[in-house]
Amino acid sequence: MSTVAMEAASVGAQLRPVGVIRSALKSRGDAPRQGSEGAPDAWVEVHPWAAEALKGLVAGDEILLITWLHEARRDVLQVHPRSDTSNPLTGVFATRSPDRPNPLGLHPVFVRAIEGDRLRVGPIEAIDGTPVVDIKPVLK
Amino acid sequence: MSTVAMEAASVGAQLRPVGVIRSALKSRGDAPRQGSEGAPDAWVEVHPWAAEALKGLVAGDEILLITWLHEARRDVLQVHPRSDTSNPLTGVFATRSPDRPNPLGLHPVFVRAIEGDRLRVGPIEAIDGTPVVDIKPVLK
Repeated sequence: MSTVAMEAASVGAQLRPVGVIRSALKSRGDAPRQGSEGAPDAWVEVHPWAAEALKGLVAGDEILLITWLHEARRDVLQVHPRSDTSNPLTGVFATRSPDRPNPLGLHPVFVRAIEGDRLRVGPIEAIDGTPVVDIKPVLK
Repeated sequence: MSTVAMEAASVGAQLRPVGVIRSALKSRGDAPRQGSEGAPDAWVEVHPWAAEALKGLVAGDEILLITWLHEARRDVLQVHPRSDTSNPLTGVFATRSPDRPNPLGLHPVFVRAIEGDRLRVGPIEAIDGTPVVDIKPVLK
């Protein structure tokens, strides 16, 4: 890829949050590593401009939330998995570390309820204030 | 979210491509709608600065590629699923339409081979030149 094309791709790839997580989990230290590890339910507050993109979602659906892990480090390329130094250094593309060049979080959750522009979802390990950048149905 | 916090989140969420898809599929018209619908294998060329993040991946792994669908429209909130006007207008968050506010592509693929900084993966419906923004292992 030429430098010019690289810059064009980079400039175009500016995420615009479509909503935000509202959770009882207030910090990374509070959060389990995966939703399946005892995480709570939370609210997704969808921003008004994006709300019509929810049409067709119903309680009981299984969806994927894609979040921007806004507290993650972007300069980390290798980690000890699960922060255990007895695990060998591993590339972040072979792990689910939140610290990675583009800290996108991927959360398979169930829709528990829909109230206007708010979705009750879970279980989810994302912390309060995490921007949501996409919502996709799980393909059956 | 206040306007200031919204702007801060938006400014921080600038994606930096970590690689690019090299595929025989050259345009959206050529591409099947999902990788499972007859898509070919393709190469992921990982940019040199990100290559050490691959350490630990091996042929046979199942991974998720997250791409930036650079030809998608970002101003679309509702679509007729599968471009069939007999399907009722549906919010893009209830569909896998590439046209959506943040056109992130999610591709579950197998690693066929690894050659230096290049991964042979498939099946994948992403077109040639699509930026790759993240690679994650599929959780067992």
